[in-house]
Amino acid sequence: MTKPLILITNDDGIDAKGINALIEMIIPIGDVVVFAPDGARSGMSNAITTTSPLRYELVEKHEGLARYSCNGTPTDCVKLALHEVFTRRPDILLSGINHGSNAAVNVIYSGTVGAAFEGCANNIPSIGLSLDNYNQDADFQNLKPYFVKIVNAALREGLPNGVCLNVNAPNTAINGIRICRQTRGYWAEEFDKRIDPNGRNYFWMTGYFKNAEPAVEQTDEWALDNGYIAVVPAKIDMTDYNFIKELEMWKL
Amino acid sequence: MTKPLILITNDDGIDAKGINALIEMIIPIGDVVVFAPDGARSGMSNAITTTSPLRYELVEKHEGLARYSCNGTPTDCVKLALHEVFTRRPDILLSGINHGSNAAVNVIYSGTVGAAFEGCANNIPSIGLSLDNYNQDADFQNLKPYFVKIVNAALREGLPNGVCLNVNAPNTAINGIRICRQTRGYWAEEFDKRIDPNGRNYFWMTGYFKNAEPAVEQTDEWALDNGYIAVVPAKIDMTDYNFIKELEMWKL
Repeated sequence: MTKPLILITNDDGIDAKGINALIEMIIPIGDVVVFAPDGARSGMSNAITTTSPLRYELVEKHEGLARYSCNGTPTDCVKLALHEVFTRRPDILLSGINHGSNAAVNVIYSGTVGAAFEGCANNIPSIGLSLDNYNQDADFQNLKPYFVKIVNAALREGLPNGVCLNVNAPNTAINGIRICRQTRGYWAEEFDKRIDPNGRNYFWMTGYFKNAEPAVEQTDEWALDNGYIAVVPAKIDMTDYNFIKELEMWKL
Repeated sequence: MTKPLILITNDDGIDAKGINALIEMIIPIGDVVVFAPDGARSGMSNAITTTSPLRYELVEKHEGLARYSCNGTPTDCVKLALHEVFTRRPDILLSGINHGSNAAVNVIYSGTVGAAFEGCANNIPSIGLSLDNYNQDADFQNLKPYFVKIVNAALREGLPNGVCLNVNAPNTAINGIRICRQTRGYWAEEFDKRIDPNGRNYFWMTGYFKNAEPAVEQTDEWALDNGYIAVVPAKIDMTDYNFIKELEMWKL
């Protein structure tokens, strides 16, 4: 039996601790091709690069593992990897492990999940994997049995075209895995205003997530708050089918 | 009666023909605040800027119109505008008019629609407006009665929190407006490989959209192909609720 072919990318860059922890977990499962940004690309969502050229280079290659570094966004990396370095479609795409949660509305800003959306747009089963800890030295070790279980299940069961998994782990002892939906909420008070030496204002984006439904057990934030790994199936068809009927009544 | 307060942004930059056509259409309806990128930010999706500081400046201000230019992404613009220049929440956010279609899967890459998602994440009725013509000199004039009708309807009816409208117009004579869903499909063959004067490879992203359901009348691509303006309600909750049950059966 041939081993599964696995594409790994991320948004923290190819040298981040998270992606290297993921490679280590996954290498026993299949043949791994890493194609990841050459540096941090957090918050890049599904951004693509069309106004400047993309480049990539082979960093390392040996039996079972090849690593490529690219100057693009996570989504660029997936597109370019599929076009350039694969002779057959990968069996699965894994993005992460992200340093920081991508639960709730973070899904729309996340480069990690963006790469997973790009994967499932190309009909590849795709999973974004994140740990709720922004620290560069975050500890990913206790995630291994859970993440390997999720990856093996996705390889076995497959995923529908256009649907990926957004997996977020708490930065605590882990009580298990929960299937969830995206939590409602938003980011509040997002700028730190400063004055530069020339007297001009500038702004750092900051803020905190306001959970609009903190006690609701089906949400991914609840799972994280209670020590569970949250698995949310996320789809690239963003149509609000329920609202179509109401919109028809606008008589446009 | 106070006039509605309207935030206008885009991803082609504050000097693009499309945003200025939109301002001209909308100024009779309300008080307009333009807060837009200082240059092109196409394909920026919902990208946010957290690793470098943001700046903005007032370009123009007179009765009924203020224009601000910002060094960030479309999503940055919405966040910074809401934080800095509004004393009350705008009644509506309009993003565009984009030079180029944002129908089908383009919704996940689009900076134009990204800004609209950011608006509805902040519970502001938000609309992304695009014309299926990438030309810098595209003609937006015949869109006016349709876009004004859509904007007035949204002001009158409101939109649910977390739901925006993705509006795309064909670059032809217009037969009317259709309520649609997002077309399934993907981008194919996306790179033009070249060699620089130093002998190194580089890649321009390019390609074409492959429509997976070209004859389906409910889709936004069908509407465009048949001379209709496509209106798709799009939501930031990306959970695939239908797939949750199947995922429960994985026994994670």
